[in-house]
Amino acid sequence: MTYTGSLLSIDKNLQIPVYLQIANGIIAHIRQGVLKPGSALPGSRILATTLYVHRKTIVAAYDELYAQSWVDTFPRKGIFVAKNLPDVTPRNIVADSKTGSYPEKTFFMVDQNKIPFPEVFKAPPAYNLIINDGYPDTRLAPVELLVREYRRFANYHFLPKYLTYGPEQGSENLRIELARFLADTRGLNISPEHILITKGAQMAIYLTAEILITKNDTVIAGDPGFLGANDIFKHAGANLELVPVDEYGMDMDAVEEICKRKKVKLIYVIPHHHRPTTVTLSSERRMRLLELATRYRFAIVEDDYDYDYHYSSSPILPLASLDYCGSVIYIGSFSKTIAPGIRIGFMISPKNLIIQATRLRKLIDRQGEQLLEEAMANLLKNGDIGRHLKKSNKIYHERRDMFCQLLQKNLEGLVEFNVPDGGFAVWMKYLNGIKPQDVAEKALSAGLSISNGTAYFDDENYQHHYIRAGFASLTPKEMEDAIEILARVVKKLNGL
Amino acid sequence: MTYTGSLLSIDKNLQIPVYLQIANGIIAHIRQGVLKPGSALPGSRILATTLYVHRKTIVAAYDELYAQSWVDTFPRKGIFVAKNLPDVTPRNIVADSKTGSYPEKTFFMVDQNKIPFPEVFKAPPAYNLIINDGYPDTRLAPVELLVREYRRFANYHFLPKYLTYGPEQGSENLRIELARFLADTRGLNISPEHILITKGAQMAIYLTAEILITKNDTVIAGDPGFLGANDIFKHAGANLELVPVDEYGMDMDAVEEICKRKKVKLIYVIPHHHRPTTVTLSSERRMRLLELATRYRFAIVEDDYDYDYHYSSSPILPLASLDYCGSVIYIGSFSKTIAPGIRIGFMISPKNLIIQATRLRKLIDRQGEQLLEEAMANLLKNGDIGRHLKKSNKIYHERRDMFCQLLQKNLEGLVEFNVPDGGFAVWMKYLNGIKPQDVAEKALSAGLSISNGTAYFDDENYQHHYIRAGFASLTPKEMEDAIEILARVVKKLNGL
Repeated sequence: MTYTGSLLSIDKNLQIPVYLQIANGIIAHIRQGVLKPGSALPGSRILATTLYVHRKTIVAAYDELYAQSWVDTFPRKGIFVAKNLPDVTPRNIVADSKTGSYPEKTFFMVDQNKIPFPEVFKAPPAYNLIINDGYPDTRLAPVELLVREYRRFANYHFLPKYLTYGPEQGSENLRIELARFLADTRGLNISPEHILITKGAQMAIYLTAEILITKNDTVIAGDPGFLGANDIFKHAGANLELVPVDEYGMDMDAVEEICKRKKVKLIYVIPHHHRPTTVTLSSERRMRLLELATRYRFAIVEDDYDYDYHYSSSPILPLASLDYCGSVIYIGSFSKTIAPGIRIGFMISPKNLIIQATRLRKLIDRQGEQLLEEAMANLLKNGDIGRHLKKSNKIYHERRDMFCQLLQKNLEGLVEFNVPDGGFAVWMKYLNGIKPQDVAEKALSAGLSISNGTAYFDDENYQHHYIRAGFASLTPKEMEDAIEILARVVKKLNGL
Repeated sequence: MTYTGSLLSIDKNLQIPVYLQIANGIIAHIRQGVLKPGSALPGSRILATTLYVHRKTIVAAYDELYAQSWVDTFPRKGIFVAKNLPDVTPRNIVADSKTGSYPEKTFFMVDQNKIPFPEVFKAPPAYNLIINDGYPDTRLAPVELLVREYRRFANYHFLPKYLTYGPEQGSENLRIELARFLADTRGLNISPEHILITKGAQMAIYLTAEILITKNDTVIAGDPGFLGANDIFKHAGANLELVPVDEYGMDMDAVEEICKRKKVKLIYVIPHHHRPTTVTLSSERRMRLLELATRYRFAIVEDDYDYDYHYSSSPILPLASLDYCGSVIYIGSFSKTIAPGIRIGFMISPKNLIIQATRLRKLIDRQGEQLLEEAMANLLKNGDIGRHLKKSNKIYHERRDMFCQLLQKNLEGLVEFNVPDGGFAVWMKYLNGIKPQDVAEKALSAGLSISNGTAYFDDENYQHHYIRAGFASLTPKEMEDAIEILARVVKKLNGL
């Protein structure tokens, strides 16, 4: 097919001269492959007629293309797309780059240690049974209800409001409903202005760290602990001080020891079902922690992601509910309440911090998903979230009991664990020196994904025998199958 | 109603001693208001019977409550909820705090200048006509199609995959479809591994800046320009060097001047419809910019958010499509293609930078909305996005023409503007020294929201007479009404 140039569009009202519009259009066609190297271009007279422009304009366009090496001209033959298309990069500088292929590396330096924490997501093989690290069962998530709410918003009259730019602090409706929900469930006496809606608890921790921490500030966290938070604090420039976690939570004597030695900026604490060990911070230690924060003037970052799931006892009310002086930043998430894929979390603090966090949030991603936030506000308002929690608490309670019984029955003498009072996982120790890595590897080839014990201790090389075994995402049948495989593997490693 | 304690739950398998479980449960009830100050608690014998525990356990629980000052005991009368409930904060330190109310300020210092850029979102009055800064019309967004895709995923078999943790780099399906889409529309020769899915272009700029910039690095941007990006570079510690923008885009002589004086780390450029002035960077300047980047080894951040909307001429292919040495980071967004509320953007670069950006992204918010990303992948795959672009390009083209004609007709001699070749807004100057602030103020009281001219120039105090007037979100009727009000206001300010 002969190229006629009829697809070139011209607008004489534009600031760009017409000859350049034509040249750029032809370059586009060459780059898109519409015009192949070596193919003929129409004569200037013909193209001028096609495009209703003066012939001189076409000559100027062709001159431009020739100057940029996009075309070759041969006297008495005409003008042709160049066989060697222009490479705008001087070849001697990047000798190794291949024309036309996307470069392997940037031309400028990128510090590969700027963020040293590697991405880790690997999807497990689809045919596998999974004992995960302790997540809710996504199959129980009220997605039908979410979609119902989306449908409600997919309405001509709502769209101008919820599909455009909105409040950086998050949906006002959601903050109103959340303040009510947190008052009812946690005794928090806050108003919507104290809430910033984030993408999961992760973003709340990130914002807090970036605002509060300056280089070499001391941050205290538990060991073992949640490395996803530790990485954020390290990235913000903090020196981490780790304190042991026992059956009552973080060791407050150790915390006070550190406070006496140096100025502490903040402490990161998971008061319910400490991740990974599932212990709950005792009431005495909570009181002690608040006193220490007041005495030594540090911030408490209270990550209470697991508050909504208790099977045995009432949850202890958050530190934030007892905090009358503004020591506590309270963080929570619907990612655990509903599903990890629902990326709605929140941070709660006095307004001077919320303002700074909101501004940073605006720099990072402008705002959250308004439709999702509005849908969640409605689900909270009409009680759907409450009903979901009630229903899923019952199911997870049963699953916890069954999981612990199965462990007891099938792995007696081979593992050690305490029954957790809530949450989604059991903190379990392999006895007789069996290594989690070995179990994970053997289990995988038998069709079961299970933790290999990494990402619990800050020293990744520390050899221990613990894993988190999530029970919440397994139906009774899956649980039986999974523990049967696990028992077989562990017994074999024990020489049984 | 007498409090019997029957709602207290106990689990003997727990790590927490039973007496503490009981004490904590009672504290929770006090805090929730189930137990009022001064109300009687059941005797230890009675409560022991109710809860099936030894009486000593109840005595220990009450001792704990007394020690923590939650209860008072009166000999021969019994045990009562304390009238003055414990305030865990020593009063002398925070004399101004009121017990029970949420604190006004944090107890620790928060630097209010850490992020100096204030949040700005203000919803306009609902009854107003709006000439916005140039956004797509959300009423045209294919939300019905999005909801259709959501429904498809709200299926038992998909949920375990898409509602749990997923790839930090973004949906693989979306990256595959996007690579195809970008090859078709922009001549970009990339594969999915070169793409990071972000929350809007904003997050892509943030990640790039945080990874590449160290304190006092020089960054070049246009003036006037997009202050949302400038704020990010300043926050990352950059020294901004501003270069003028004329009718062919950023002044490359000025860029080279700076390069000769000092080491430049990166340049931020909006090649199509520069924000705010709507000019397109000419082909010669594009070539020149790539050459300068290669010679002076700086990074080009190419924010091409407006590529998909051209009404008069073909778009010029991205710098990234001509970049064989890895100088260019290409940034785009569906927030402009579809609606600002759809927070999906992307950055494209060689893998060494994508790896770092992905790791930082994981620290910030773990991952994007998988359901939304999968839905968008399907819309790209089955051509819905292509059809939407075709349809909306036609509509916006007509709206641009009509808007410019109305301006011409109603405000001749009072404003000056060029017809933009694409995008969503006209860059318009009020003549005769009329100030944008005055127009905006008077227009607002007449029922029209319109830009007051801030947020275009880096020096916010610079007195100029320009605004961006968005035509894309206005129907013909709304447009007529809006420009009628505008004309009335501007004429009055001109004394006509």
